[in-house]
Amino acid sequence: MKVIIIGGVACGAKAACRLKRLRPDAEIILIDKDNYISYSGCGMPYYLTGDVSHIDELRRTDFYVLKNEKFFQEIKGIITLTKTLAEEIDRKKKIVKVKYLETGKTEKIPYDKLVIATGSISKIPPIPGTDLDGVFTLSNLHDAIKIKERLVNGQVKKPLVIGAGFIGLEVVEAFGESWELPVTILEYFPQVLPRLIDPFMSRIIENHLKEKGVNVVLNARIKEIVGKNGKVSGVRTEDNFYPADLVLLATGVRPNSELAKKAGLFVSPTTEGIVVNERMQTSDPDIYAGGDCVEIKHLITGKRVVLPMGSLANKQGRVIATNIAGEYAIFKGTVGAFILKCFDIAIGGCGLSLESARLEGFEDATYALNIQHERARFFSTGCSYYSLIFDKKTTKVLGFQTIGPFTDGTLARIHAISSILPFKPNIEDLISLELAYSPPFNTVLDPIHNTAHIAENIIYKRFKPISWEEIIKRLKEKDEKMLIVDLREPNEAKDITQKYPNWINIPYQEARNKIKELPKDKNLIIVCSVGAKAYEVARWLKAEGFENVYVALGGIVLPQSWGEKF
Amino acid sequence: MKVIIIGGVACGAKAACRLKRLRPDAEIILIDKDNYISYSGCGMPYYLTGDVSHIDELRRTDFYVLKNEKFFQEIKGIITLTKTLAEEIDRKKKIVKVKYLETGKTEKIPYDKLVIATGSISKIPPIPGTDLDGVFTLSNLHDAIKIKERLVNGQVKKPLVIGAGFIGLEVVEAFGESWELPVTILEYFPQVLPRLIDPFMSRIIENHLKEKGVNVVLNARIKEIVGKNGKVSGVRTEDNFYPADLVLLATGVRPNSELAKKAGLFVSPTTEGIVVNERMQTSDPDIYAGGDCVEIKHLITGKRVVLPMGSLANKQGRVIATNIAGEYAIFKGTVGAFILKCFDIAIGGCGLSLESARLEGFEDATYALNIQHERARFFSTGCSYYSLIFDKKTTKVLGFQTIGPFTDGTLARIHAISSILPFKPNIEDLISLELAYSPPFNTVLDPIHNTAHIAENIIYKRFKPISWEEIIKRLKEKDEKMLIVDLREPNEAKDITQKYPNWINIPYQEARNKIKELPKDKNLIIVCSVGAKAYEVARWLKAEGFENVYVALGGIVLPQSWGEKF
Repeated sequence: MKVIIIGGVACGAKAACRLKRLRPDAEIILIDKDNYISYSGCGMPYYLTGDVSHIDELRRTDFYVLKNEKFFQEIKGIITLTKTLAEEIDRKKKIVKVKYLETGKTEKIPYDKLVIATGSISKIPPIPGTDLDGVFTLSNLHDAIKIKERLVNGQVKKPLVIGAGFIGLEVVEAFGESWELPVTILEYFPQVLPRLIDPFMSRIIENHLKEKGVNVVLNARIKEIVGKNGKVSGVRTEDNFYPADLVLLATGVRPNSELAKKAGLFVSPTTEGIVVNERMQTSDPDIYAGGDCVEIKHLITGKRVVLPMGSLANKQGRVIATNIAGEYAIFKGTVGAFILKCFDIAIGGCGLSLESARLEGFEDATYALNIQHERARFFSTGCSYYSLIFDKKTTKVLGFQTIGPFTDGTLARIHAISSILPFKPNIEDLISLELAYSPPFNTVLDPIHNTAHIAENIIYKRFKPISWEEIIKRLKEKDEKMLIVDLREPNEAKDITQKYPNWINIPYQEARNKIKELPKDKNLIIVCSVGAKAYEVARWLKAEGFENVYVALGGIVLPQSWGEKF
Repeated sequence: MKVIIIGGVACGAKAACRLKRLRPDAEIILIDKDNYISYSGCGMPYYLTGDVSHIDELRRTDFYVLKNEKFFQEIKGIITLTKTLAEEIDRKKKIVKVKYLETGKTEKIPYDKLVIATGSISKIPPIPGTDLDGVFTLSNLHDAIKIKERLVNGQVKKPLVIGAGFIGLEVVEAFGESWELPVTILEYFPQVLPRLIDPFMSRIIENHLKEKGVNVVLNARIKEIVGKNGKVSGVRTEDNFYPADLVLLATGVRPNSELAKKAGLFVSPTTEGIVVNERMQTSDPDIYAGGDCVEIKHLITGKRVVLPMGSLANKQGRVIATNIAGEYAIFKGTVGAFILKCFDIAIGGCGLSLESARLEGFEDATYALNIQHERARFFSTGCSYYSLIFDKKTTKVLGFQTIGPFTDGTLARIHAISSILPFKPNIEDLISLELAYSPPFNTVLDPIHNTAHIAENIIYKRFKPISWEEIIKRLKEKDEKMLIVDLREPNEAKDITQKYPNWINIPYQEARNKIKELPKDKNLIIVCSVGAKAYEVARWLKAEGFENVYVALGGIVLPQSWGEKF
């Protein structure tokens, strides 16, 4: 069996190595246009931070073997053609036409099975100046090397990043933290990590970035990347100019599906991803495709999406190898689980954000917000934030987001939720989750449980939630129907109650009796640190016959985490 | 509605508070024989370590409110009778007879619904000397206070712990690490954490304990706790004497189900746990029970077990409150998830150990072992160990164990597996798990995936595993049919190959050609660092027509982690 694999970074390299292990007799030809293959693309930001000391560290196995052409060729027994471009696929003759980029020569190589793992291409925004010296993307190791060189040589004083997605935030950390440079990040949307997390969560990150000295510009309408003598000097938006000597375009990627399209394989016109079935076969059953260049099923919406993630690419490579080897494996789809480090915090999510859920037609989508220490108080590392997106009617879980200190606690919660999301759990299933407990690791009911409990209380209408966005709006409007009841200690609430006439303090410990005197004709908004006491007092008020009682979701800690100064 | 709750630590306190929130009109009477209620029992070892500075820290809410009688009474609105013993339940009259321990007076209190949350009682081994001064259990805060006092007063120079379960190991850390005392731990079984994890995992912990200076004595047959003038002076086993001035009995607990039994409620004669249905109702539908005193369903075996865990008790308390409030909630059972810290390592597990699985009749139970860095190599914190127990025939997952550095990485993997175990996953489901990836948190395929891949390779007979226990046995027997092929670098393998004639070195990078010269009449055992290269080379050997090829599960790192000096 002769197998050609086009693309040797994640999916392709994985498919090649596994297939060779399953079928040592197979003749496998791995083709890549680059000289670097089988490297950790997701590790590139950490080459910029310095955590990765040498670019080759991104190319080694866990046990220090460099995964270069020689390694693939001699040790793995895989014919490895680097600096080789796959120009054309002749599906009738089952031939791939390649061009050796160093010599310019071409050759036609026959195959029995073919794998397309051509990855993605960075999206370049359609603005002037993207070709200036000093404007980069972070698409491959060459980019990483060039950016690092400039950093090391002191050529970067004012870096600027366009796009506040995963790569953007990771690179901002590299510039700001490791290189201590004043860094600006421009984002088109009104939030960082747009569509991935919701604004009430993203504002926590935005505030953290600001505290770290990052100049965060949202709603940025970029007109032009400006240069002097061919070198970048800044970025002009509709209403400002940001000087910069290095600009990183982190504006997303699109599937590199051109070769597949030319060969007549089905490629989605909407996602631009190659269409594959669960076995990762394209519309030609002898041709498989995987990684960033294909579209896959989103397990919550059922829709086809492209999701360029190294972990998914590796899993798909494994599925492809198994199927080509004559066994059976499928890749069912994705729940879009992600995690990233951003300065001192960890950010994770899976499923849909509230905004995405509503866009996808989940009309009854809403959220529960839980803020708590992630472990027993005496082992605490500070507050973590958990947001659960669910359907109020069906009680189905739609998504989950969490932000916390840079521990693996965020990973733990995302791992748990992303693992069960494909089983279409409802809130009750989350409440029933058995989550191991010990004080150095978590709370006796895990943060997941506590978040699900809040969701359940919302579903059963045990309290009426109100968002801080709404409270702040009403405060600004001087809403006289609103009375905020702050349950914190007097010294905690003093400053704020002095400022706002409709913000009063009734300490929790005195609340049971004092609440009886509250006016019944006002909309009472109950506020405590994180929401638990407010919920309890709202229950008391209900029992006392109060009707218009609202609990501030997340407590005062939430707007504080946004940097809100009332 | 009048509700009496007997027992106010975990399940009882949770049931009381939630019920009051759901039904503020309910009259709730919380009864406890102790003066301390609603505290973190699982936090007691950390009062001994000093992480918890004052005993009251175990009694506070997340926001520093002390959960004493006054708090329950005045703030929660729950009638709270501490130092009050529930002596008898008259189910016909629906009355609980209580005795006020301070005055000796008794009273009969009527109920509509009753909750029994009487917890557990420490098992005292039937040996002489358990009543000596200086012999303790760690059953409640009073015990914790007394032990801590002795530590603080310098009365403890030679502590000794009997029983290497959760509490035993946590307290050993307190004595050894925080108080820098020479501590001995005696365990009846031939391993620490017996039945919870398998010996090939427990030996890693035993070695870690030894490295930390703990005197670990397994297979201990204790005859007597010895005293002088009424004070403990040591522990005598069948073949030794261990001097000690403080002995902690951490020999497990049994359900405190006496009151329920006396009231004629069904109590299991085998587990001693109160029998409850999924709604946590006893055989009397007006009486609920939860926490350490009940038996619950094990979701892997289907059998009834008692599992004294604070997290389960809290969940059950919540279920009880919901049901008494007239709503509907169930507690389905347990998969036995646990996690603990032990000096510098984290230990976690869920489901069945291999030994337990075989005892439970899973004849085809076997295991896969994966050793790897838990995150990208450039963020590594050292090796983690993952063991997956599964049924070779049905491919069902039966259990999972992991040991790693003290990060939340262990929690992340246990959370993921324990979350899906109730869905009865097979190995393919684990391989399909979507687990968020980023280099600071994990590897591109998560350790769970890599472990499941090894299991899959075992199921599909892609290699023949051999355990290190077996290899070491054969080495000692000088098995001449065995030839160990060590794939590590020459400098890594040199010492060992010089010592054993049947242990040869063929570095991985040269293996593809050199293995052809290996003898076909020997049992070849392929060894590398952790097993991945050995698997690959075994595949090559198979392709070359070799039949008797075995891969050492876990690589040489495993016996090294046991402290094995070949």
